Amino acid sequence: MEYKSMDAAQLKAEHAAVEQKFQALKAKNLKLDMSRGKPGKEQLDLVSDMLTVLSKPEDCIIDGFDVRNYGELTGLPCAKVFFAELLGCKPEECFIGGNASLTLMYDTVSKAYTHGLLHSEKPWCKLDKVKFLCPSPGYDRHFKVSETFGMEMITIPMTETGPDMDAVEEAVKDPAVKGMWCVPKYSNPEGVIYSAETIDRIAHLKPAAPDFLLIWDNAYCIHEFEGDYVPFPDILSLCREAGSPDMVFEFASTSKVTFPGAGVSVMAASVDNLKYMTGLIGMQAISSDKVNQLRHVRYLKDKAHALELMKRHAAVLGPKFRAVLNALDKEIAPLGIATWKRPTGGYFVSLDTNDGLAKRTLTLCKEAGVVMTGAGATFPYGKDPRDRNIRIAPSLPPVEELEAAIDVFCTCLKLAALEQLLANK
Amino acid sequence: MEYKSMDAAQLKAEHAAVEQKFQALKAKNLKLDMSRGKPGKEQLDLVSDMLTVLSKPEDCIIDGFDVRNYGELTGLPCAKVFFAELLGCKPEECFIGGNASLTLMYDTVSKAYTHGLLHSEKPWCKLDKVKFLCPSPGYDRHFKVSETFGMEMITIPMTETGPDMDAVEEAVKDPAVKGMWCVPKYSNPEGVIYSAETIDRIAHLKPAAPDFLLIWDNAYCIHEFEGDYVPFPDILSLCREAGSPDMVFEFASTSKVTFPGAGVSVMAASVDNLKYMTGLIGMQAISSDKVNQLRHVRYLKDKAHALELMKRHAAVLGPKFRAVLNALDKEIAPLGIATWKRPTGGYFVSLDTNDGLAKRTLTLCKEAGVVMTGAGATFPYGKDPRDRNIRIAPSLPPVEELEAAIDVFCTCLKLAALEQLLANK
Repeated sequence: MEYKSMDAAQLKAEHAAVEQKFQALKAKNLKLDMSRGKPGKEQLDLVSDMLTVLSKPEDCIIDGFDVRNYGELTGLPCAKVFFAELLGCKPEECFIGGNASLTLMYDTVSKAYTHGLLHSEKPWCKLDKVKFLCPSPGYDRHFKVSETFGMEMITIPMTETGPDMDAVEEAVKDPAVKGMWCVPKYSNPEGVIYSAETIDRIAHLKPAAPDFLLIWDNAYCIHEFEGDYVPFPDILSLCREAGSPDMVFEFASTSKVTFPGAGVSVMAASVDNLKYMTGLIGMQAISSDKVNQLRHVRYLKDKAHALELMKRHAAVLGPKFRAVLNALDKEIAPLGIATWKRPTGGYFVSLDTNDGLAKRTLTLCKEAGVVMTGAGATFPYGKDPRDRNIRIAPSLPPVEELEAAIDVFCTCLKLAALEQLLANK
Repeated sequence: MEYKSMDAAQLKAEHAAVEQKFQALKAKNLKLDMSRGKPGKEQLDLVSDMLTVLSKPEDCIIDGFDVRNYGELTGLPCAKVFFAELLGCKPEECFIGGNASLTLMYDTVSKAYTHGLLHSEKPWCKLDKVKFLCPSPGYDRHFKVSETFGMEMITIPMTETGPDMDAVEEAVKDPAVKGMWCVPKYSNPEGVIYSAETIDRIAHLKPAAPDFLLIWDNAYCIHEFEGDYVPFPDILSLCREAGSPDMVFEFASTSKVTFPGAGVSVMAASVDNLKYMTGLIGMQAISSDKVNQLRHVRYLKDKAHALELMKRHAAVLGPKFRAVLNALDKEIAPLGIATWKRPTGGYFVSLDTNDGLAKRTLTLCKEAGVVMTGAGATFPYGKDPRDRNIRIAPSLPPVEELEAAIDVFCTCLKLAALEQLLANK
C-alpha cells in the first residue's frame, strides 16, 4: 500500500514498526560504506597479476625506448594506441596522464584560467564572470572544480537522453558560458547513455564563447555490468565534422579497469589543442609514470582484451547492483515514496525520493552506521533544489554487507517518508 | 701555454690543428647526449628489483589499508615517514606526489595564481606584477615556470656559498617580489652547497610580501657521488624558529634514486600550509599512485638503506664526473679559456668560458653530434648576460661515449676561443 494512501492511524502504526526496526539496526553498530564508486577487493584481486607484468629491466624497453628514464611528456606511443582504440579517436589525439583523469580535467580548467585555451581571447582569470553548464544530477567532483575556480554554475536538467538540449542551446548564446560538464555514457549518477540525437546536438553547438570547453568525461566508456559492450561514438570526430574540432576535451582512465590507486588516465583532443596544451604542460611535467603506462598496455593489451576483463568486473558488480535494485523493488516500490533508474553500466544507482526526503534519509543512514554520498552532492553548490536525489554506490561492500546496507537505507527512507507524512497530517 | 699569450702565428697554427681535429670528429657522425641530468642504464638496472617488490594482492595492504584503491589524498603514512626522515622534517609536514616534483612546484605556483597562498591578500593573477628571485646560474625548468606565469624574473648572482644574500635581502623589500627558487644542496648546475650562514639568512628573511614563497628544491638531498653523505639542515625547522613557518615549501623526489620515469615526489611544508593546500588539491586529485608509493617504501626502506643505494649510484656516477673533470684539467685548464666547479654531488658540471664563447661552443658541439643543454638555459629568459655558462650533464652516456663527447666538447671550446682571439687580432 502506498504511504500516501494511508490514514493517520496506519501511518502511526507503520512508523512505530519502522522506527523499531531502525533502532534494532542502529544497535548493530554497523559500519558500511556506499558513499563512493570504489571497486571492491574482489575486483582489485582480479587485476593484481598486473603487478608483475614488468619484472626485469628488459621488460621496460619498448621500441628501443627505456620507459624507466625521462622523456615522452605526452605519453608512450603504445599507450596512445591503446586509449585511441578504446575511445575511437586517433593516437595523436591522446595525451597520457597519471593516476586520475580528474587531475587532467582540473589542470585543463586551471590552464584556461591562468593562460587561456587555444581560442581564448584572454585567460579566464581576467574575465569578470565565467559560467559553466552543469547537467544535474551530476558528478560532485566536476562541480567542485567549477566551484573552486569561482565559476557561476548553471544547472541543466538531465533527461532520459542526456542533458536538456533546448536549455543547453539557449544557454550557450551567452558568451560568459564557457563550457559544460558531461559524463556521456552511464552518466554519474543516473547511468543515462546520451542518445545519438543529444550527442549530435552537442557536437553542433555554436557557443558564443570562442573558447567553449566541452568536458567529455568518458569515465565509464567500457563499464557495462549488464549485457554486452555498448558501442559509443567518437566525440572528437563528431565535433570535427560539425566544424568545431577544438571545442571538446575527452577524458578517461583505467581507475575502474585496473587499480583506482595506480591507474593511467588519458586526455583526448584535437591535434591543435594537444599541441597548444602540451606547450603549457611542458612547463609543469616531465611525463607521467611511464613504467605504469607500459605495465597497463602489456596487461590490458587492446580493446578486445580490456572488454573481456570488464566482463569479469561485471560478474562481480552485476550481483551488487541487482541486490540494490531487488531490495528497492521489494521494499520501496510499493510505497510510492521514491523512483530510481535501472542502469546497465557505470557505478551508481540514482534514486529520487519524494521531495524533501533526501537529507533526512541520509542523516538517518549515518546514525545507523551507513555512509552515503552527501545529499545534494549531485547538484551545483551541493544544493539539490528539491532535496530528493540520492546516489547509491554499491560497488565497494561485499554482497552480504551490501544487503545489510541497503536494508538500512530502505528503513531510513521509509522512516523519513513517514515522518514527513505524519508532520503534514 | 695560455691562448691569450699566443701571438697571431701561434694562434693560426693552433686554430688549424684544432680545426682539423674538429673536422675529423665531425666525420665520425657521433650522436652523443650530455644535455640533461638523466641517469644511465646501469643506474636504472641497479634499482629494477623494485619492479617486483609488490607482486601479490596481500603485498598491497599496509596497516589494513589497500593501496590499490581510492583514498589517502596526501599520501601513504609510511611514505611520509620515509621522506620526513630523508629531509629531517615531520611526517605530517609531507604531501606525497606523483612522478615529478616539478609538477608539485608548478602546481604550488599555479595555485598562488588562481587561489593565492595561505597568507595571500589576493590571488597572484589579480596583481599587476609578480617578481621572483632567480639565483643564477640556476635550473632552467624553474625559470620556465616563472616565465609561463609571466613573472618578472630577477637574477641573483650565485656565489660559492649560495645566492648573494645581500642582493636577496635587498630585493625582498619590494612587496612585488613573491618568492625565490633555490636548489640548496648541489645547486643546479654548479653543485654548490648553500653554507650554514646563507641558509640561516634565508630562513630569517623578512620579505615585504606576506605570501613570499621560498621554493626549496632539495632535488639532490642524498645525491653525493664523491665522499660521504653530507648532512643538511631542515629548512622547515629553521623557518619555524625564525618566525616564518609558512614561508617555505620544500620539494624532493626519487627521480634520481629509483626511476626518473616512475618515481615518487614529496612536498614538505608547515602543517598550516599543507592543510590549506590540501583543501585546494582535494579538488584536483584523488591521490597520487599509492601502489608506487608503497613499492618505493618497501624497496628503499629508510634513510640509511637509501643512502647505501646512493653509494651504488655514486660508484656509477663518480667515474663519469671524473672523466669530465680529468679531460677539462688536461685539455682546457692550461689554455686559460674557461673555469669550472668541482662538485661532489648532484648531476652537473658547470663551466664558465671566457665571455662570449658559450653559444658558439655549443653550436660547434651540435655540428659534431654532441647535444648539450642550450647556452643561456641556466639564466632567466634563457639569456646568459655574459654568454659563458655551460651545463655539462655527464650522467647518461657510458664512460667510453662520455670520453668521446667530452673530447668533442673540449675541441669545440678551443675552436670557439681561437676564433674569438683571431677575430680580435
